[in-house]
Order: sequence, then C-alpha cells, then structure tokens
Amino acid sequence: MARHTYDYPRPCLTVDCVVFGLDETALQVLLIQRAIEPHAGCWALPGGFVEMGESLEAAARRELQEETSLDISYLEQLYTFGGVDRDPRDRVVTVAYYALVKRLDHVARASSDARQVGWFPVNDLPPLAFDHEVIMAAAHERLRGKVRYQPIGFELLPTKFTLRQLQHVYETILDRALDKRNFRKKILSMDLLIELDETEQGVAHRAARLYRFDRRKYERLSKRGFLFEI
Amino acid sequence: MARHTYDYPRPCLTVDCVVFGLDETALQVLLIQRAIEPHAGCWALPGGFVEMGESLEAAARRELQEETSLDISYLEQLYTFGGVDRDPRDRVVTVAYYALVKRLDHVARASSDARQVGWFPVNDLPPLAFDHEVIMAAAHERLRGKVRYQPIGFELLPTKFTLRQLQHVYETILDRALDKRNFRKKILSMDLLIELDETEQGVAHRAARLYRFDRRKYERLSKRGFLFEI
Repeated sequence: MARHTYDYPRPCLTVDCVVFGLDETALQVLLIQRAIEPHAGCWALPGGFVEMGESLEAAARRELQEETSLDISYLEQLYTFGGVDRDPRDRVVTVAYYALVKRLDHVARASSDARQVGWFPVNDLPPLAFDHEVIMAAAHERLRGKVRYQPIGFELLPTKFTLRQLQHVYETILDRALDKRNFRKKILSMDLLIELDETEQGVAHRAARLYRFDRRKYERLSKRGFLFEI
Repeated sequence: MARHTYDYPRPCLTVDCVVFGLDETALQVLLIQRAIEPHAGCWALPGGFVEMGESLEAAARRELQEETSLDISYLEQLYTFGGVDRDPRDRVVTVAYYALVKRLDHVARASSDARQVGWFPVNDLPPLAFDHEVIMAAAHERLRGKVRYQPIGFELLPTKFTLRQLQHVYETILDRALDKRNFRKKILSMDLLIELDETEQGVAHRAARLYRFDRRKYERLSKRGFLFEI
C-alpha cells in the first residue's frame, strides 16, 4: 500500500449498485451471487472497492461492468452507508448508486467476484449479504418518490407509445393499479406529451392513440420537478 | 494503524458540514478558518476525519462540535464528494451533511483545528478551501429545492407567527421578494396553518393575525411532500 500523507485511521471504501430493470410485468433488481467471503454464496448488490485513481461513479460503473457485464452510462448517487458494523471483517463505508433501465436491453453475465447474476422481482428478493436489504429499501423508496416528482419513461418506452403503456410503467414501479381515467387526465394535464396523428398497428384490441414525449418539456420538468399525485 | 483485513488501497474518509443559519435579514452559512495545512488560513466548511468506531453522522456532529462548539442534533446527508484531486495531499473522500437552524440560537466559538469561526451570507462568501465551494453550492441548491417540496419554518419561527414572518423565511432562503397576496393564498391553501384568535402585540403597524403550524399536517406533508410553486 502507498505511503499515507494523512495519519488517520482509514475505513475501506466501496461502491454498490442498485440497478432496477423494468420489463412488461415487474420491477426487478440486478443481484450477484458472491463467490468470495464474507457471505460467499449469498446474493448481494454488485459492487466493490474504490481504486485510488477513479471517481466514485467510475468505480460503480466499473464494478457493475466487471461483475455483471452491464454497461450503464449514468448511475445516480443514492446515499452513503457507513454503519460501524455493516461488514463483519472491517470498517467498510459504501457509496450506493442506482439506475432504472429497460431490462430487456441489458443482458447480464456473471464474472469477476460474481458466481451468478440474476434479475429478481423487488418484492421477492432472496436474503441479501451485509446491509444490502437496507440499501435496496432506500433505493426502492427513492425510485417511488422520484416518479412523483419527475417525469419518467423516456428511456423505458419506445419513441411512440400509448397511454396504456405509460400507465403500465407507473403501475409497475408503484406496484399498484391506477385508475385509467384519472391517470390520463393527470398525465395529459402535465403538458408533457405530444399527441400523434397515429394509432397502434397490428393489435387485436381497438388501436389506441400514440403519443411521444415533448423532449424540451420533459427535460425542463426533470429539472424543475412537478408533483404527480397518483 | 490497526491491521487491515481487506488488502485494498484506502482513501481517507472525512465528513463536512454545511450549516445554514437563518436570521432576520439573511441566509448565512457557518465557516471556520483553517489553522492547519493544507489551506491554512483559508475559510472552509467545518469537518474532519471519520473515526473507526463512529457512524458518519456521529462524525459530522462531533467535528462540528469540536471546531465550532455548535451542537446540532440532526444533520441530513447531502452527497458524497469523491473527486480524485479534491485534496492536494492524498485521496480524500468526504461525506457532506447539512442543516438549517435559527442562527441566533446558535453561538459559534472556534476551537480544535479552527482558528476562527464565522457566519457568512451565502451570497457573499470568501474563497473556500478544497472543493468546498462546490459542496456549498450543492447544499444551497438542495435547500432551495427542499422549500418547494416540504414545509419549512417549524424550527425557525416562534410557536405563534404572522404570515409576514413566514413569508420572510421563504424570501430569505430563496433570496427574492415574493408577492404577498399570492404567497398568502398558496400557503393557506396548503392547509398547514391554524389561524389563531390572536394578533401581534406591541407593534407600531396594524397588528397582524397570528398562526401556528398544524403539527400533524406539517409532519405528514414533510413525509409525503408537496409542491409549493412560488
């Protein structure tokens, strides 16, 4: 280890990643099965030690890529967990990051310290290593809060989508059914969507109107925030 | 230094505190003048190294107390700053915390690594050590965002207050004048205040109606969030 300039005790510093994946039916989260002690064989969030020459976010992206082969360009910092006893072996402080992606666009493969990798429904997780259940719960709460304050769906839906598809994104994240009329009225009042002169193609049911996001307004609302009371 | 279990390079870990103080005229922030290198003589946020046996928030409270003698029971985690070059001597990652207090209730006295301590208007800060200007800006932005999403004032105003006093809190934090009629209409529509059957005492101008917060609603709105478009 390099010579230290500051003569203070140093906790270990790690990063952990909560990657939420949305598919047609559920909100899932990406986990790895640990290959090494402590907690070998146990499922955990992907993550690992920060290297001296990389930023925290770069460390999170690198660890995620190494362990799961997922390459995610933007991870948002969630919170730093520094409980004294969160690792049985040593004092370890972890900076947690999170992201929400379209699950089918991201194929995960285990490597590095991961024996296996898998997507699990957020409501049906295996027991997790360390305090990862606490981190997971904080990330889930942040995500549910976020959909109330910021528009979502841009990276999750096709360019042209129906209101039913958008409602389904909200329902999956919030894990509850929303009233169709109420949802439509509220989302349209946000002035966020552009109604297209097109309808769905090749569906058995009555073809629904297609919409797209007004990108400028989407970005402005992402920044300013709104309150979507659903 | 104790023997390390994990054989990975270890950055230093510090905490820094952004304490906003509100008084009659301005939003201020608590700074210390550093007594030691690097940046000796420079103003900085209070903070320091995390000890092995304490949580991050406990470290923040301890450092704040040691350097400024301020005892603040609740600090909220802001963000963790881990840029590779943020300290000229070593890799130092810092977990930043923030709080908003009534300035006159908190008398600061320099000690420990602080040569001096002082409250500075957020809009007129001296040059700061390290990346503390970045941390300061992030905290200021978080605070301004917070007043749009959560009720404020409970810890900042007397139990009974006028709408003018409450408006002044918002104006000071947001650093701009608000339209009186509009502010009153909006804050009353939040259903957060209880109108009392009392008016101000001993004022030269026409005595204004007094209000108090409905504590239950205040807490519920703090949790659920609202959108106060001002």
